Amino acid sequence: MNRIKVKCPGTVANLVCGFDILGLALNEPSDIMELRLLDKPEVIIHNRDNYNLPTEPERNVAGVVLLSMIEKLEKPVGFDVTIEKHIKPGSGIGSSAASAAGAAVAANLLLGNLFSPDEVVQFAMNGEKLASGVKHADNIAPCILGGISLIRSIHPLDIVSIPSPDLFVTVVHPQIEVRTSDARQILKQQVLLKDAIRQWGNIAGLVTGFMKNDYDLIGRSLEDVIIEPVRSILIPGFDEVKKQCKEAGALGGGISGSGPSVFMLSRNEKDARVVETVMKDVYTRIGIDFNTYVTTINKKGVEVVSGE
Amino acid sequence: MNRIKVKCPGTVANLVCGFDILGLALNEPSDIMELRLLDKPEVIIHNRDNYNLPTEPERNVAGVVLLSMIEKLEKPVGFDVTIEKHIKPGSGIGSSAASAAGAAVAANLLLGNLFSPDEVVQFAMNGEKLASGVKHADNIAPCILGGISLIRSIHPLDIVSIPSPDLFVTVVHPQIEVRTSDARQILKQQVLLKDAIRQWGNIAGLVTGFMKNDYDLIGRSLEDVIIEPVRSILIPGFDEVKKQCKEAGALGGGISGSGPSVFMLSRNEKDARVVETVMKDVYTRIGIDFNTYVTTINKKGVEVVSGE
Repeated sequence: MNRIKVKCPGTVANLVCGFDILGLALNEPSDIMELRLLDKPEVIIHNRDNYNLPTEPERNVAGVVLLSMIEKLEKPVGFDVTIEKHIKPGSGIGSSAASAAGAAVAANLLLGNLFSPDEVVQFAMNGEKLASGVKHADNIAPCILGGISLIRSIHPLDIVSIPSPDLFVTVVHPQIEVRTSDARQILKQQVLLKDAIRQWGNIAGLVTGFMKNDYDLIGRSLEDVIIEPVRSILIPGFDEVKKQCKEAGALGGGISGSGPSVFMLSRNEKDARVVETVMKDVYTRIGIDFNTYVTTINKKGVEVVSGE
Repeated sequence: MNRIKVKCPGTVANLVCGFDILGLALNEPSDIMELRLLDKPEVIIHNRDNYNLPTEPERNVAGVVLLSMIEKLEKPVGFDVTIEKHIKPGSGIGSSAASAAGAAVAANLLLGNLFSPDEVVQFAMNGEKLASGVKHADNIAPCILGGISLIRSIHPLDIVSIPSPDLFVTVVHPQIEVRTSDARQILKQQVLLKDAIRQWGNIAGLVTGFMKNDYDLIGRSLEDVIIEPVRSILIPGFDEVKKQCKEAGALGGGISGSGPSVFMLSRNEKDARVVETVMKDVYTRIGIDFNTYVTTINKKGVEVVSGE
């Protein structure tokens, strides 16, 4: 195989109480990436969208991933990459992770699965390092694997798939800029033990709720007493959207990744559509442009569209 | 029914990474309690053991539980209580919780299940308040319900049963005194966010491991970067016991509750017996008296032995 086209899903990281350790993959939106093998150790990037992302490999998320992979190869191999982004950069639904994960998975397939799944995640994390300054895997892992991923540990890497019931996800992306690196910097380095205890009760509850198909427990556990109170200040309308969405039937939700997107989980499509209407109403009234998505959990992760 | 005899299991709280939110019930040791209805609002306590615990109801764990229950009753009712403790007070395997939970469950049965399960837990928590100064439920809940309990939240009370595979539990109780209140006071009120993140990764991993019957994941997740480094200093031989037990085949383990008992989980009885030998060797060499138990998870919780 010399050429491969993959579909790379958007992802929601953190899942409210699981900062840096939980994420889920979305069926919408997703990017398309096409990779072609080259016989020189170089990376050539073409953007087929209007986001004007850098095409120098060292400054491009997919580029640094592929460069890090090329470094480990014994043979002179390179990649020509065409990226068609539909996940808006900076939206908080894993745009950089989609590029990084897509590049790593597609390149590894072109190399005949030379690297293990954990190594593929490690390569992809180099893209997150470029995008946000931190090698986190809570978007990368679900993007690659699909479903809900727990990153129990980064050193050593320990990724666990969490089964879940069918869930509908409504996302609103208010068109404001929240830089992931800024969203990290405003966090306090110390937290109260009593808050940490409340948080780990919720995390354990959320994971148990997913695995027991217990929608009410999922809803009760979607509470974040540590990160959300700090970060939500960066997102206009956050408190109102959250309150009204829950009143409208959402199980719960919060900031997607480091924002500015806000996501809500619902037990059925009808609720998820009502939640979308609430989100639209709030941001229309506030006067901020927005996109919304009503979608479900993507169970497949990065998916091969075609290859030859 | 005017008289009831119940068996009240010992419990292991915290389960390493789940400080204040996780606990499991043991098949050994357990207390026996006998309650008799009285027609006056009073509590009479008889100790049928050698621990010299207070018999004034206001100073007795079972006593305060029953007094708090009597306060809520419209009719003049009291209880005559005989306690036969086998769970040594101060051992760290839920001695006070057994008395508190046993009293609450037995009294409620004598009252014809007047109170809801959550109310029974709430009454029992008054006993923990007397014993340790804090109303925690991570011994009470598994003692009453059996199995592994998650206390997602105390306010409001939210208890979730966590399914688990068969596990063997080896406990060593070195005969030194660690007061629960002291063990709480030495904890730092603030923790590093990065440590909290590591901890909640482990908690999510542990719960997932239990529910997926994944012994290796259970083992990897039995790591505590917040409480154990501080509290283990109070327990001579802790680091050595832990290291050697894991080398001998234990999945992992740590301080039981606030200590001084140390527990280890194993996947089969053979491993659990080898672990017991290791524990005995370490404490024999250090020269501290000890008890050990090799047991399994109690799935029933407080159990009626007889009633008439």
